[in-house]
Amino acid sequence: MTAPSTIVVKKYGGTSVGSLERIENVAARLAEDLARGEMPIVVASAMSGETNRLVAMAEYIDPDYRGVAYDMLVASGEQVSIALLAIALQKRGIAAQPLLAYQLGIQTDNVYSKARILKIEGERLLDLCRRGIVPVVAGFQGIDEEENITTLGRGGSDTTAVALAAAIGARQCEIYTDVPAVCTADPRLVPGAKELTRVSFEEMMEMAALGSKVLHIRCVELAAKYGIRIHLRSTFEAREGTWIVPEGEVMENPLVTAVTHDANTFVFVLHPVPAGTDFLANLFDRLATRGVVVDIITQSDTGGGQRLAFSVTKEDVALTRQTLKEFLPPGVDVETMEGMGKISIVGVGMRNNFGVAARFFRVLADAKIPVQLVTTSEIKISAVISSEFLSTAAGQLADSFELRTADAGASNRG
Amino acid sequence: MTAPSTIVVKKYGGTSVGSLERIENVAARLAEDLARGEMPIVVASAMSGETNRLVAMAEYIDPDYRGVAYDMLVASGEQVSIALLAIALQKRGIAAQPLLAYQLGIQTDNVYSKARILKIEGERLLDLCRRGIVPVVAGFQGIDEEENITTLGRGGSDTTAVALAAAIGARQCEIYTDVPAVCTADPRLVPGAKELTRVSFEEMMEMAALGSKVLHIRCVELAAKYGIRIHLRSTFEAREGTWIVPEGEVMENPLVTAVTHDANTFVFVLHPVPAGTDFLANLFDRLATRGVVVDIITQSDTGGGQRLAFSVTKEDVALTRQTLKEFLPPGVDVETMEGMGKISIVGVGMRNNFGVAARFFRVLADAKIPVQLVTTSEIKISAVISSEFLSTAAGQLADSFELRTADAGASNRG
Repeated sequence: MTAPSTIVVKKYGGTSVGSLERIENVAARLAEDLARGEMPIVVASAMSGETNRLVAMAEYIDPDYRGVAYDMLVASGEQVSIALLAIALQKRGIAAQPLLAYQLGIQTDNVYSKARILKIEGERLLDLCRRGIVPVVAGFQGIDEEENITTLGRGGSDTTAVALAAAIGARQCEIYTDVPAVCTADPRLVPGAKELTRVSFEEMMEMAALGSKVLHIRCVELAAKYGIRIHLRSTFEAREGTWIVPEGEVMENPLVTAVTHDANTFVFVLHPVPAGTDFLANLFDRLATRGVVVDIITQSDTGGGQRLAFSVTKEDVALTRQTLKEFLPPGVDVETMEGMGKISIVGVGMRNNFGVAARFFRVLADAKIPVQLVTTSEIKISAVISSEFLSTAAGQLADSFELRTADAGASNRG
Repeated sequence: MTAPSTIVVKKYGGTSVGSLERIENVAARLAEDLARGEMPIVVASAMSGETNRLVAMAEYIDPDYRGVAYDMLVASGEQVSIALLAIALQKRGIAAQPLLAYQLGIQTDNVYSKARILKIEGERLLDLCRRGIVPVVAGFQGIDEEENITTLGRGGSDTTAVALAAAIGARQCEIYTDVPAVCTADPRLVPGAKELTRVSFEEMMEMAALGSKVLHIRCVELAAKYGIRIHLRSTFEAREGTWIVPEGEVMENPLVTAVTHDANTFVFVLHPVPAGTDFLANLFDRLATRGVVVDIITQSDTGGGQRLAFSVTKEDVALTRQTLKEFLPPGVDVETMEGMGKISIVGVGMRNNFGVAARFFRVLADAKIPVQLVTTSEIKISAVISSEFLSTAAGQLADSFELRTADAGASNRG
């Protein structure tokens, strides 16, 4: 299936539809798109705050429950926003059809709250477009084999948009959000962070994994898999934002594309590591079975036995503690480090430049920031440091790798 | 299909699930039902206030819009309440499955906001019951041929409950609400109104049509059609309420079963009525086409030409005005009477008692209440009077037809 290039999937996020006025604004903007000859397929998130409100009700009744009813509950937020957006479009004389997951056959697995899309029937969308009716699709939701509603996890509406684009054979997808572009760093932490015109899929995936909140990693994975170019741009400004594209389409690769940070890190240190070749395998196997996502792992010799350190997100701390308690033999000391964060640099330009790692550690050393854990890949270097240093580290790294506009950098350093 | 008699459809209304605490209470009550050996099929309304909140959002954007998106929007309220109720049941160790209209194939026509149920697949419900899983069904909603969500109108969840009972071949259905029983009059208007143990389907339909808010007329029609006995009872008390049953099961018929009132009445008076045999037919045909429901019609000779009066509900006033403006030839004077109400007495006992009408008018005359319009059927008499007299009329009629407890009647008269 290949959609005509006039058909464009456009996703509007929670802040974009965060009030009735903003829903009207989105409708007005879509009317302009139509007037220009585009045929939009719209995906919308829940109005900002709504998902939290629904989650709070579920957790009041049972903080531990997850499953069919939970997903049905939180998915209602998107049902509300697409219905309101469809009404706003029709008020402007634009035929619109709000659509839920079951109406489009958005099939997922049944991993509730973190479901993965398996299949979408794109034909109904194209048929509506041919008839001049704007499809307005609920993001974030799918259905499993028993037609129960599933949800795709936070940021899932981005994934819905890319999956719809893939299903109709589109080559691109627009994601409208409350920031105008992907930046070289979080501008709240690093004043003067530059906007990026183009970022490769690989870099964007690393950035998402390392703490950038702009796009959800699964959405970028899907875009990379199907070659869907994502145009991330502001709901509130008409100008272009950032294109997330195959690496070959990024013309000019700086040494480092961006610095990202993540304050949501917690480190466990085990000492001494018990003897036996399969201890590590068994430990991480056990943690994985329980659903703990372990991030960075390092092991070092302390003279008095091996020392193992690994990081997890705050959400997984309780589960990790419990698992360690059940699993570890007596005599292993468990130390925990709270208030940790992760600072990373990302860039495909690092592939062929061997000095980047040295410069990364030099910057942290010059700022007298102790490094606890380190991990690297071909296109990124990450270090776990104390959260209190995140801002300084991000600023210094941005300066060293020229990620700020000249003015802002100067004023910030001055 | 015939369900085992242990399977009972139980409908909980908006006030019954009006807060998270109340949802917990409903779950606790269902746990008791299960402990007693019953297998409930639960139908729930939206949490009280929620439907109004959703309607207000739609009307903010476009007060005139009705259609697919409107129904999808307001149906989200039931999705929230059944999900929360299912979570509350599971917290008590009770397996529960929340179900939306599309999952049960609740097929309706596509008259949005007032859809009628055409078909329900009852097999999935019975299958869940057999497996010990409590179905928790969203009331008020259905799907049309294109799988769009439709809604059944105010009170529609009662209709859902009766339709589900019919679909599984059950012989009765419990409707839990915020009043303990159907009364001989609205107790807020007539202190000391008696609770009724049994009411016939026909009487209940008349009462619903004449202003009683306890049950929606369509729900009672459906119950009568399929012979589903309705047990209307309080969510907050364990005792029995009122059974709505076939006429043969009502043992003892008083002369008058209940007095009902409806303040929502507006009268149009046309004078003189134009000549021509088809004027009336054309007028009411035109009004019907525009969706105006005309209630009482009377015509009388005034000497100076025929005078036609008819009543409509307040909602239809604007549409009636507009239709008359387009339709009436010049020279016909249109007078409108605002602030009108309708007072009625209902009872199958009236069938064989000719003196009831005389007594009805005598009571109103003694109270010096002018009567504007009158209509009667085999089991009811209705009069349009000024709204300010509704309370007096209801009280006097209740006394005359012994519809109050002796104490309350005496104290009220004294």
